[in-house]
Amino acid sequence: MKMDLNSDLGESFGAWTMGDDAAMLDIVSSANVACGFHAGDPAGILKTLKAAKERNVAVGAHVSYPDLVGFGRRNMDIGSADLIASVIYQIGALQGLAQAAGTRVSYVKPHGALYNKIAQDRRQADDVIKALLAIDKSLVLVVLAGAPLIEWARDAGLSVVAEAFADRAYTPAGELVSRTLAGAVLHDENAITERMLRLVREGALEAIDGSTVRIEAESICVHGDSPGAVSIARNLRERFERENIRIASFAG
Amino acid sequence: MKMDLNSDLGESFGAWTMGDDAAMLDIVSSANVACGFHAGDPAGILKTLKAAKERNVAVGAHVSYPDLVGFGRRNMDIGSADLIASVIYQIGALQGLAQAAGTRVSYVKPHGALYNKIAQDRRQADDVIKALLAIDKSLVLVVLAGAPLIEWARDAGLSVVAEAFADRAYTPAGELVSRTLAGAVLHDENAITERMLRLVREGALEAIDGSTVRIEAESICVHGDSPGAVSIARNLRERFERENIRIASFAG
Amino acid sequence: MKMDLNSDLGESFGAWTMGDDAAMLDIVSSANVACGFHAGDPAGILKTLKAAKERNVAVGAHVSYPDLVGFGRRNMDIGSADLIASVIYQIGALQGLAQAAGTRVSYVKPHGALYNKIAQDRRQADDVIKALLAIDKSLVLVVLAGAPLIEWARDAGLSVVAEAFADRAYTPAGELVSRTLAGAVLHDENAITERMLRLVREGALEAIDGSTVRIEAESICVHGDSPGAVSIARNLRERFERENIRIASFAG
Amino acid sequence: MKMDLNSDLGESFGAWTMGDDAAMLDIVSSANVACGFHAGDPAGILKTLKAAKERNVAVGAHVSYPDLVGFGRRNMDIGSADLIASVIYQIGALQGLAQAAGTRVSYVKPHGALYNKIAQDRRQADDVIKALLAIDKSLVLVVLAGAPLIEWARDAGLSVVAEAFADRAYTPAGELVSRTLAGAVLHDENAITERMLRLVREGALEAIDGSTVRIEAESICVHGDSPGAVSIARNLRERFERENIRIASFAG
Repeated sequence: MKMDLNSDLGESFGAWTMGDDAAMLDIVSSANVACGFHAGDPAGILKTLKAAKERNVAVGAHVSYPDLVGFGRRNMDIGSADLIASVIYQIGALQGLAQAAGTRVSYVKPHGALYNKIAQDRRQADDVIKALLAIDKSLVLVVLAGAPLIEWARDAGLSVVAEAFADRAYTPAGELVSRTLAGAVLHDENAITERMLRLVREGALEAIDGSTVRIEAESICVHGDSPGAVSIARNLRERFERENIRIASFAG
Repeated sequence: MKMDLNSDLGESFGAWTMGDDAAMLDIVSSANVACGFHAGDPAGILKTLKAAKERNVAVGAHVSYPDLVGFGRRNMDIGSADLIASVIYQIGALQGLAQAAGTRVSYVKPHGALYNKIAQDRRQADDVIKALLAIDKSLVLVVLAGAPLIEWARDAGLSVVAEAFADRAYTPAGELVSRTLAGAVLHDENAITERMLRLVREGALEAIDGSTVRIEAESICVHGDSPGAVSIARNLRERFERENIRIASFAG
Repeated sequence: MKMDLNSDLGESFGAWTMGDDAAMLDIVSSANVACGFHAGDPAGILKTLKAAKERNVAVGAHVSYPDLVGFGRRNMDIGSADLIASVIYQIGALQGLAQAAGTRVSYVKPHGALYNKIAQDRRQADDVIKALLAIDKSLVLVVLAGAPLIEWARDAGLSVVAEAFADRAYTPAGELVSRTLAGAVLHDENAITERMLRLVREGALEAIDGSTVRIEAESICVHGDSPGAVSIARNLRERFERENIRIASFAG
Repeated sequence: MKMDLNSDLGESFGAWTMGDDAAMLDIVSSANVACGFHAGDPAGILKTLKAAKERNVAVGAHVSYPDLVGFGRRNMDIGSADLIASVIYQIGALQGLAQAAGTRVSYVKPHGALYNKIAQDRRQADDVIKALLAIDKSLVLVVLAGAPLIEWARDAGLSVVAEAFADRAYTPAGELVSRTLAGAVLHDENAITERMLRLVREGALEAIDGSTVRIEAESICVHGDSPGAVSIARNLRERFERENIRIASFAG
């Protein structure tokens, strides 16, 4: 058995540091690297890419709405021409830096508000799909498990990888419980690890109401933005290895 | 005989328009396209690239210091790590958009303050050279005729094209007369065209003091930021064609 | 009789020019001056403020979402803390520059997507109202005629001025006809002037279906972003003057 | 005896945190608050201003070159019109937010590269002086002890406060030892405190070569960007209080 672990990296900006990229690159198999629109300055991105290369971690473009002060977390009514070109621009910029770091961009995972928006919104989803097709048809799109986007992207000819979130509760319908609700975010390391083990083995986990929900995911997203988050991710990886679940990128 | 004509394009930004890209793309053989750091938003850049593709105009990355409000015209003490990565980022972004437009980036021409700085400054010059080598060794660097940078870049293994400015006066030493001095910028269309004809045929032109100065240039930079500038460029092209000087990119 | 004419000014940015501020300042009585978030760099804003001061034109803060590349025209899900502080920041910045120009900020007119949003959206409207109350309770808020915001702002203790748009068609309900519909924008100078004369005299104009609609407005917004727009505004002013309608700011 | 302690605060930006403003506001008497050009978003600035108000800490505008990604630490050849207006814009924005926080801006301390530049460079110094005079002549300018700027600003009619740096070594001529040299930055809490005690009592301290150098300073700058820095500052304050040196803003 194998599973991919992905995490958002390269999110420092100029004098500001975010997350512990070095620690996370020892844990994950795929690095979603910021492209400068919600986070990441060129020198910082390049440093993260070199570190990913050293550890043989796959690289994805963590593309975003143009919103540095809002960290790409705010919905934005961006038109198609702007969204398509913005996504291409970010992927291209990261490809250039990846080339300089001796690696390459193998997938795209939209960030924040854009990630959530295109999971459900056909127009913006199509824009992002068009962007990938225009720059490199072989780019894999990483998508929220269960989202309509999975089918839209596959129909358009893209390879898609669905992901689950290690520390998030799910509804019986297989959707993420909104962060505004109690219990939406899990904190217990061992409980999180057990859930993810079950996900890998059974393709299912316990929903917030105690029922069992099927989640088809080829990648698990873990966070690295706090010492606690890094610890959760490390616990998960170590247990997976003990259980002979290989941590490896879907990107081959 | 042949000569390349290049011009700065893609310099609109969001709701703001600059220059007449469509008109200039009918005149020049090489388009220096803004990459978003001094000008150019992704959708506008993509539009310019598509128009360049349609007219078979070669595309160069017009890379800049990160300075939108100053239009990249202000010197900036940027460190090497930042400068190298910023240049790679911009080239990569443009490569991505060029791919989407069905064309490719064949050269790099730094913009504004960066252009002038690296013509003479070894450290920043080396940074830009390193950036090109890191992303694509086959990228041609377009440089001010007579600048020390020409040799530095060739020694590092890059192909270099020297350029002359159609509307600028030269010192007897072959340098541009500073814009702060009277007579630095030429306005007479026919006089400009005659100068450039002589440049093509003799590799020389008349310096500001009346002496003859040798200028080795494989490209001529023309402007498109005013109706008068477009007219100068068009006059130049039409006369060149009548004189059987082929307008063609160095980029082959 | 008197009427205020207002227009969006100070919308150049760095090397990019937008509109003809000098021409418009000879026509209008109130200048909605950009504050740097959708347009306007500090030096350009200061220049516009000095020109407004010279002509005794009242100054308003044309506050926006933070969205330079989108020119503030895109809806954005900005939180209350960010919106309140962003509006205060922009008003303060403009007050500082107005002080340097020998004038003062007497009103606030939100721009673009923010303008349309708060006309109807209670939460964002309340944020803007709180911002004005926090920095200067005497600031007048300029609002779309007929919008719920008028009452919300008055209830909160602000002075409100409703405005009509000279070149826009209205529904029988007194709302603007959407720009996506035919006939939404008027272009005939004289027809526009006649409509606005009727607005001043009768507080009414002809809706798009031919019916009569009441519009209570103390200010008329005119545009200056094209030679045609400037001409419409000038025509309006000249006719108003001939009809002894005094063009004067509500800001006294 | 009394002394002012000042520190750079409000330097978080959006999702990125920098420094421990709450801890430092319990230690210093003057808060140099970022204005958005090198750091600081409106909501974060407002939060810092409210915290300063609660603790009765004086507020200064920490104005900068426009350089978010470079944190205002890079020299920039900015023209006079842009520099003057940019400084006014930042002060105004902070005044607006200070008004909303129930406090006011009583001084200006330029940040980073601008701080160092104007200490010696007459043209940019005059630009900053003009900016202060244009917006509020009563603003105090905080300046590096010993810098020519002190006299330039006083001659122009501004109140000036000279400051020393708690953790920096000085040359026998009273200048800061360059950070590129060994020993430039001091780390020993008690040694730093002893030096600053001597500064308060004798107006002198030991230069890097062991000689005694006179430093006239009415304020001491302490840092808060690391736990170690906060500890140094706290140590200094506590010792000053034990020695009956009152920590109080010059802004009275």
